[in-house]
Amino acid sequence: MQLPSALLENAVAEFSKLPGIGKKTALRLVLHLLKQEASSTNQFSEALIRMRKEIQFCKHCYNISDGPICSICSNTSRSKETICVVENIRDVMAIEATQQYSGLYHVLGGLISPLDGIGPADLNIDPLLNRLQENRVEEIILALSPTLEGDTTTYFICKKLNEFPLKVTTISRGVAFGGELEYADEMTLARSIMNRLPVETLVQHQSMP
Amino acid sequence: MQLPSALLENAVAEFSKLPGIGKKTALRLVLHLLKQEASSTNQFSEALIRMRKEIQFCKHCYNISDGPICSICSNTSRSKETICVVENIRDVMAIEATQQYSGLYHVLGGLISPLDGIGPADLNIDPLLNRLQENRVEEIILALSPTLEGDTTTYFICKKLNEFPLKVTTISRGVAFGGELEYADEMTLARSIMNRLPVETLVQHQSMP
Repeated sequence: MQLPSALLENAVAEFSKLPGIGKKTALRLVLHLLKQEASSTNQFSEALIRMRKEIQFCKHCYNISDGPICSICSNTSRSKETICVVENIRDVMAIEATQQYSGLYHVLGGLISPLDGIGPADLNIDPLLNRLQENRVEEIILALSPTLEGDTTTYFICKKLNEFPLKVTTISRGVAFGGELEYADEMTLARSIMNRLPVETLVQHQSMP
Repeated sequence: MQLPSALLENAVAEFSKLPGIGKKTALRLVLHLLKQEASSTNQFSEALIRMRKEIQFCKHCYNISDGPICSICSNTSRSKETICVVENIRDVMAIEATQQYSGLYHVLGGLISPLDGIGPADLNIDPLLNRLQENRVEEIILALSPTLEGDTTTYFICKKLNEFPLKVTTISRGVAFGGELEYADEMTLARSIMNRLPVETLVQHQSMP
């Protein structure tokens, strides 16, 4: 596909660098911007530049924040004794959306993945250990994805946490709500039989709003 | 989904204004930019601002161009006697990609669509008539999509062209290459039987590179 203008070509190339956006989609987006007023393109671009320049990461938990301390860490009504360790801020948002957790978070910024060249030193693991030394924490919830990288990271952090007198938990794994048993993979089904729960917990869950 | 930062919220809102990009995709794109160097966000934003500010539309055919006259109109090896009328510059690119057309173009900038409030005056139809008065044109090819809006526009332009001594043609419609007859819609099949061609044309097409 040959574009009639170098300026257009350049804008399309920049859009195609974004994940999941190919050249055709990029062209559609650029032509959309061309159809709009010039002011809307400026507004769009300036929002991105300003966001990239001014956004900060919370000094305590590494969540995205407008100031040095994020809104969750500075919220006095949240319990400071529980820290939920997650991979990235999307996981923070997903857990916040459930409205079932009132503790703090710690964002690792990734998972240990030797294939991608990401080792423990690239993640915010040391700051987590510092937080434990400086604050009275009773429980660490390791809420990482049940993948190879997630489990490796969970295992690594668990070992580091051995020296601290605290409870370490992980999110439960099992058949998803609405999922059918026959389609669940063997590992998941095996785990959910091994970690079976009293029926009362199910009744409690169902009566929740 | 509540975002932890107003700057992030703003950037996500701007991205979601683009067609086909919802709030979740917008967030993914913004987080991607946050992971990259700040310079790549600046480069992206500046390419868009510059494109929107400096890009021009060809004075003759309204194609996108870096200068006042586009590369197609200023190409002396193209035949000036044929003008292909298309809806937008993506159609120009699609026809150029076939490498089967060596005439000029005229970009309407849309189709007549009363439901969307687009009338003939909103399109580049008058400039097309001016072009015909000022230049010796022998054939106009109306290459508009075979939709309700496309056919309305074709019909409207045809009436306007009556006063000029030229040949007016439209792109042929029929069963697409590789399409199966039983899945073709009735209208298309009916048209392709009515407008049947000598078998020789098929042989010619198949022997083309």
